[in-house]
Amino acid sequence: MNTAQDRARQAYARIDETDRPEAWIHLRPLDDVLADARRLDARVTDGEHLPLAGTAFAVKDNIDIAGLPTTAACPGFAYVPERTATAAQRLIDAGSLVLGKTNLDQFATGLVGTRSPYGVCRNAHDAERISGGSSSGSAVVVALGIADFALGTDTAGSGRVPAALNGIVGIKATLGLVPVDGVVPACPSYDCVTVFAHGLPDAVRAMRVITGPSDHDPASRTWPATAPLAAPPEPVIAVPSASNLAALSPAARDLFDQAAGRLEDHGARLKELDIAPFLEAARLLYDGALVAERYASFGAGLEEVSEDPASAASGGAASGGAASGGGVSGGGVSGGGVSRGGVDPTVRAITMKAKDIPARDLVRDQQHLRALRLRARSLLDGFDAMLVPTAPEHPTIEDVQADPIGVNSRMGTYTNFMNLLDMAGIAVPAGEADGGRFGVTIVTRAFEDQVGIDIAALLTGTEPPLYPSTGLDVALFGAHMRGLALNHQMITHGGRFIREIATSPRYTMQALPTDIPKPAVTRTGTASLVGELWQLPPAGLGAFLDALPQPMTLGKIELADGTWVTGFGCSDPTGEDISAHGGWRAYLDLKPRS
Amino acid sequence: MNTAQDRARQAYARIDETDRPEAWIHLRPLDDVLADARRLDARVTDGEHLPLAGTAFAVKDNIDIAGLPTTAACPGFAYVPERTATAAQRLIDAGSLVLGKTNLDQFATGLVGTRSPYGVCRNAHDAERISGGSSSGSAVVVALGIADFALGTDTAGSGRVPAALNGIVGIKATLGLVPVDGVVPACPSYDCVTVFAHGLPDAVRAMRVITGPSDHDPASRTWPATAPLAAPPEPVIAVPSASNLAALSPAARDLFDQAAGRLEDHGARLKELDIAPFLEAARLLYDGALVAERYASFGAGLEEVSEDPASAASGGAASGGAASGGGVSGGGVSGGGVSRGGVDPTVRAITMKAKDIPARDLVRDQQHLRALRLRARSLLDGFDAMLVPTAPEHPTIEDVQADPIGVNSRMGTYTNFMNLLDMAGIAVPAGEADGGRFGVTIVTRAFEDQVGIDIAALLTGTEPPLYPSTGLDVALFGAHMRGLALNHQMITHGGRFIREIATSPRYTMQALPTDIPKPAVTRTGTASLVGELWQLPPAGLGAFLDALPQPMTLGKIELADGTWVTGFGCSDPTGEDISAHGGWRAYLDLKPRS
Repeated sequence: MNTAQDRARQAYARIDETDRPEAWIHLRPLDDVLADARRLDARVTDGEHLPLAGTAFAVKDNIDIAGLPTTAACPGFAYVPERTATAAQRLIDAGSLVLGKTNLDQFATGLVGTRSPYGVCRNAHDAERISGGSSSGSAVVVALGIADFALGTDTAGSGRVPAALNGIVGIKATLGLVPVDGVVPACPSYDCVTVFAHGLPDAVRAMRVITGPSDHDPASRTWPATAPLAAPPEPVIAVPSASNLAALSPAARDLFDQAAGRLEDHGARLKELDIAPFLEAARLLYDGALVAERYASFGAGLEEVSEDPASAASGGAASGGAASGGGVSGGGVSGGGVSRGGVDPTVRAITMKAKDIPARDLVRDQQHLRALRLRARSLLDGFDAMLVPTAPEHPTIEDVQADPIGVNSRMGTYTNFMNLLDMAGIAVPAGEADGGRFGVTIVTRAFEDQVGIDIAALLTGTEPPLYPSTGLDVALFGAHMRGLALNHQMITHGGRFIREIATSPRYTMQALPTDIPKPAVTRTGTASLVGELWQLPPAGLGAFLDALPQPMTLGKIELADGTWVTGFGCSDPTGEDISAHGGWRAYLDLKPRS
Repeated sequence: MNTAQDRARQAYARIDETDRPEAWIHLRPLDDVLADARRLDARVTDGEHLPLAGTAFAVKDNIDIAGLPTTAACPGFAYVPERTATAAQRLIDAGSLVLGKTNLDQFATGLVGTRSPYGVCRNAHDAERISGGSSSGSAVVVALGIADFALGTDTAGSGRVPAALNGIVGIKATLGLVPVDGVVPACPSYDCVTVFAHGLPDAVRAMRVITGPSDHDPASRTWPATAPLAAPPEPVIAVPSASNLAALSPAARDLFDQAAGRLEDHGARLKELDIAPFLEAARLLYDGALVAERYASFGAGLEEVSEDPASAASGGAASGGAASGGGVSGGGVSGGGVSRGGVDPTVRAITMKAKDIPARDLVRDQQHLRALRLRARSLLDGFDAMLVPTAPEHPTIEDVQADPIGVNSRMGTYTNFMNLLDMAGIAVPAGEADGGRFGVTIVTRAFEDQVGIDIAALLTGTEPPLYPSTGLDVALFGAHMRGLALNHQMITHGGRFIREIATSPRYTMQALPTDIPKPAVTRTGTASLVGELWQLPPAGLGAFLDALPQPMTLGKIELADGTWVTGFGCSDPTGEDISAHGGWRAYLDLKPRS
């Protein structure tokens, strides 16, 4: 395995090979990272298990790392936090190396990656095109292979749009699952911390580490006991009606249809849905009163910075004062038009427009949003997920500079609604169109993140990893196993197949004379029986037991490795002894046809 | 049993006996109610089961009943809805009779019961004192024995303060459990529909009927799969520090201490807690920007009514035009100072003050509230519930007229925080002090309503009824039963004892040679064994099964009445046959001491 020290050196070598210095606002000196790496390597040598040992990550510069400046891409706003954000601290505790802080659209207000006095963040693959934002630098350093994963944030789409435009994976989990303490708030009712990675497995691995409630975050939410652990084998997926996709070019539309087609090839059932209510909600984020949350979060600070002559000197494309640290700085294209204190003029205009919105309008929009949330939920009844484009187009930097608000607004067409409507999104690459990148996002209801991950895995062709940590084991030996008559019960209760198992050689299997053929497994013999280990959500396991008919029971089963797991037994074992088959599938294959 | 027709006649006879005409804004004509009653009686005679047959209820006049005017106590605002609010419709569907619409503080803005052009609602027991508000009339008609229960609403305490001041029970469940569609919004993020009744059993019976999500209510929430079904037998209850209770007179303080003492006598463990953060949250409801929700909800309507000369004529103490219907009207003390269109001057002042609050202030207060919610949750760690006074005092009508805002504000000291902090409250009577009534409220975390009901039942001396409908059965025969070695597992998982049971005469009980003595129950004999039926929340049942050690199992048990329930079995029954004892407790009693 990669040592942490090797990984650190690789990352810095890769930084030298690639020409995206503007992706960083504060890159840590290699020596500092190597010092951390030596300590991590020593711990691993001492036998400590660090699940993320040998990996390196980058942090969007609106997320605190103790001792490094946080700028939110506004030099005049910079401060040096004493405490690391919970999400970042969890990655560090799991053994990953922090490389530095990445560039972003100022105050995370943008989807383009051009709104920063630290330079326009150029796309990883095409220096003429935008990286997308606001988590621009984080996506670029992952796409360039510098970091294994990176933390972003996402209110409008900032953790998904840059994933799409740089050809990587972006996970925006259900609001509240990942703590947002230590993050500069943008629109705090709807802010998430997100993960970028090349592949779904790495992204989910990091998400598992950073997920879980924090006493520092009032908006923390925990997995409900009903959260499903898998997508059904034939998920029903909503695809937007043609009119909802009018924003796509023919080439992009073709890529979208190809992605939908691949899902169908994998057994998904696709149904058209007019997603107009979702797109209506999307528009509320900037066009309505919700933008007042941005003024409330950083408006006063931004005004102060703009008006403070002392901070004016630090504006411009290079990072100033405390914010520059030991790293590279602003080597990219100039952001242009930066005001005193390094305030981006577009961000300033958006924010100041929100200063005098009356509270009655905010209440009206919050209530409108509630109604749209209900409408969206009812539209999604009967669907497991929804497939949408991540961004409708991949603009050039010139396009954005010509129309900074208009292009930005279009970029959020298919992303803005998700946090507002309390949904989760998994963004994955879907090809190249019109000279740029294209991606799609699997959208699910809150807490059904795993459904989205499993469907996304059908597109990325990777083994879908398990995200929620709430599953309870249950060992199956008969008709509940994959593809058999009662398997639908496991699926209905949100169950997930984990692996094949075998019992210790102390069991007997009999063929029960029931209507639906089932085996009776009892600890009364000498056979090792094969079966399947599944997990169910806690409420699913309770409901499954509640519905279990006589004479089936659930108790503990001894596995071949001597461990015990919850699994099937029988309180009234009768019928032919079929232990010699070694398992129910083998018996079914050999059973004479009746 | 009472026929519906008998019940209707009793209600109207009681109205004639009591002198509180101002409690009604619209009392239905007896003949209309009798027509409904005849139809109900016919359905019952035909064998239909109507759980609330033979009962009658009243509806606060900010909740829609199709065909009756809704005034929100503002005659100029009145409209006749076509659809009945879901909560009220569910009571009607369950067989209860609607008597009419009751008086309230205008637009549910007040805790006093004096802010209505339909008359100051006098207390049920003392005509000189206030009824409390805003659900004034609903509480009075229940306290006077006219209605079996009544619907109120509660944002600041409107479903609890009038209960306290009229000596009845008021249940304000967790926000969202009862749909609020068809209710005139006051502060829609924090509005609840509540129930008043004389006793806890009737109140919970009505709550069970009206609880459950509605497709018409975007704020609907469902019971989580973890919601506890019982208070623990020795609940840990927080009582406010002496400084938090400074608002109480010595006599009221004495009643509060007596209530706390009675809880201790019943096994509760009381611990002092400084509830300053709760009281701080309480002040946010009217003193901060949240009051903008009131302007947004009815401010424009109120302005229109005030300025419309045509509606001015309908103002005053008597109900005007469409709002009066066939009922009695405004026989009480005059509200005083009513403006054009019947707008209460205090309500108008509060609402108009909120018109120009900036959204940035509302965002700030909403975020502040989130932080207080976290703080409150962490303060309550280790507590099952909190005991607070419902209202600090019982003012006279004169007191309120002398200082309408000041007295009202004091009334909300111990109630305002509950919806803001997402907590549930059960208000019960606690005696008489200083010539008025005094009550206490059991406060719990969201969805732990049953914990509050069980603790409240210790004070009311009634059998605590079960509110959540989510429990799953599990039959116990050994150490998990009440008072035995493993009973704590049932309690930890939120379980509730339902009743004693006996199996069909087909079972055997053996004494397992385990460390903690347990029986093995198998369906292999001729004994009928006694045990206990419990319910667990679905997630609790899953977790309980997950932790179950070999050789215990859970499957189906046949009861003496031939039904089957989930219950304990054993996959490896060994040990002495103790079936002859008929059950584990009998065996333990007879077992020779070792």
